[in-house]
Amino acid sequence: MSAPISKTGDKLLLRALRREKVERTPVWLMRQAGRYLSEYRAVRAQADGFLGMVRDPELAAEVTLQPIRRFGMDGAILFSDILLPLEALGMELRFDEGGPHLPKPVRTRADVEALRAVEPRQALDYVGRALGLVKRALPAHVTLLGFAGAPFTLASYAIEGGTSKSFLELRKLMYRDTATWELLLAKLADLTAAHLAYQAECGAEALVLFDTWAGTLTRADYRRYARPWTERVVRAVPAHVPLVLFAGQAEHLFEDQLALAPTGVAVDHRMELARAFDQAGGRVALQGNLDPGALLSSPEEVALRTRALLDSVAGRAGHVLNLGHGVLPPTDPECVAALVETARSARP
Amino acid sequence: MSAPISKTGDKLLLRALRREKVERTPVWLMRQAGRYLSEYRAVRAQADGFLGMVRDPELAAEVTLQPIRRFGMDGAILFSDILLPLEALGMELRFDEGGPHLPKPVRTRADVEALRAVEPRQALDYVGRALGLVKRALPAHVTLLGFAGAPFTLASYAIEGGTSKSFLELRKLMYRDTATWELLLAKLADLTAAHLAYQAECGAEALVLFDTWAGTLTRADYRRYARPWTERVVRAVPAHVPLVLFAGQAEHLFEDQLALAPTGVAVDHRMELARAFDQAGGRVALQGNLDPGALLSSPEEVALRTRALLDSVAGRAGHVLNLGHGVLPPTDPECVAALVETARSARP
Repeated sequence: MSAPISKTGDKLLLRALRREKVERTPVWLMRQAGRYLSEYRAVRAQADGFLGMVRDPELAAEVTLQPIRRFGMDGAILFSDILLPLEALGMELRFDEGGPHLPKPVRTRADVEALRAVEPRQALDYVGRALGLVKRALPAHVTLLGFAGAPFTLASYAIEGGTSKSFLELRKLMYRDTATWELLLAKLADLTAAHLAYQAECGAEALVLFDTWAGTLTRADYRRYARPWTERVVRAVPAHVPLVLFAGQAEHLFEDQLALAPTGVAVDHRMELARAFDQAGGRVALQGNLDPGALLSSPEEVALRTRALLDSVAGRAGHVLNLGHGVLPPTDPECVAALVETARSARP
Repeated sequence: MSAPISKTGDKLLLRALRREKVERTPVWLMRQAGRYLSEYRAVRAQADGFLGMVRDPELAAEVTLQPIRRFGMDGAILFSDILLPLEALGMELRFDEGGPHLPKPVRTRADVEALRAVEPRQALDYVGRALGLVKRALPAHVTLLGFAGAPFTLASYAIEGGTSKSFLELRKLMYRDTATWELLLAKLADLTAAHLAYQAECGAEALVLFDTWAGTLTRADYRRYARPWTERVVRAVPAHVPLVLFAGQAEHLFEDQLALAPTGVAVDHRMELARAFDQAGGRVALQGNLDPGALLSSPEEVALRTRALLDSVAGRAGHVLNLGHGVLPPTDPECVAALVETARSARP
């Protein structure tokens, strides 16, 4: 193995990310902390909205730990949101029924130039404090994961002012004022790199970079308008901290993700995992890729699918079991339990 | 060529669909009739809402013809909507700001059993009349296209009651009450087949089957829960009428689309078209696949991309130039003009 053995090197998830031989496949789930858990809803009911939860280190730490206590995943990902760092650039951020809302999106050169960068350790100190609290409470064998949004995906929210279907304003800025686009992406890349480094300093043992909307681009446009800034982030992350790249619905970008040479690449559930391992050829670890929608079936069906997925890549080094996307709110916790228990009782 | 020479056999688009050698690549665009055209907005402003337009044969024919007059595409697709046939099953359908709304979705066995099938020639007679009007007004070299929604995609609207992000109710019914799911899909397949046959009788020279949401399924689930009913439709379409299958964001289902042996398969803009031709290996014609988002750039950029796409598959038989998805409402008509003119002046 080329990666150095760190003091956390004995954790199952970290060993799998280094593509070492492991006694069983480690498992964690994107959005494993969330509304599908009654204990989460209980905390949420007492909090000052979603932002009140993520900005309160005690509450953020508590909901981060809930799925670990209930199911015993091998990784705990901090309960937070990819958009919070935009506040460190001076952008206003709200969450309402329809999701995130940025009332003053950036759409002009002046808008982008006006973005100021505050150090994450100042603007996002609550993230560091929450990580510290989780770290102290986490069972010794569980890996603490931090995360951030990739520059392209952050830009989509900054420009559109929220989630979007067709990213019309983004496309206009990207194509018609490419210099301003590049200035924005550079600022976002530096912010993201600093935020990931800050989380590593505060105890995150592995990092995930979420590029939720990258798959909306063609491969040529991804290379021209997104990848260079993702690459800047990947290069800036401290070498001893494993980094997993996630891109949503991006089978066509898989080779580009591999080429960025992160520690791991998350595989969408639409892509056949064994084929992804073939294509990756041992260059990276792979995370995935059960269909989150299939967790709306039954615990028995989930156990069957989990077993089948593990069997399909049995003997392959570097697999971290996960979903292809986040846990859906109406998911029955019994289905998550079936998934985790099947993984924990399986042999590779 | 195995396809019989029909009386419309000399039309460029039909010859390309039969994978004959053609003098240039034919072009039409999904949603080529729509809000990006001022003449469309003028008609829309006078009509009784979106449904008033599609149910009025004169208005539907007029907006169908508008892009042909302005740009000179090789195909005219009837202005209509995939959800209208659901009314023939007794479902109530509305369109408001947020898109389609079905106030009484089907979610139980009783709901599905209560669906009654009325012959499309009765319930959807306005579609046949609109086709007749377009046919009479269409330049002789332009191909008239009809269309319908594939059973899976129709089921998604029937069950969710509108568009959806995660298709939670669909997944629950599909996995937990598969017998009811299959009954629903069978009814939708029969309806779709009848509606396509009706359009062919009324003058449609080629047909498109839209499976907008099929790409949300894994390949295994597509095969188990969707493909059999798409196949039933494909088999039921009159053999002399070319049929193009469209599935959104479905690179992972491309081989399954090919295996259904339609006349043509629509290729998403995320997939490299030359590679799609390689994979298809002459089994079908391919439609696509410029990125509709790239039409928000400039006429010059659109012309460059169109030329590059045509060059990338030069000499390949069976290409119909189109977008990977529909024209976006804020598209500048000059960009559509640049696309069509580049195609019309190009040599294969």
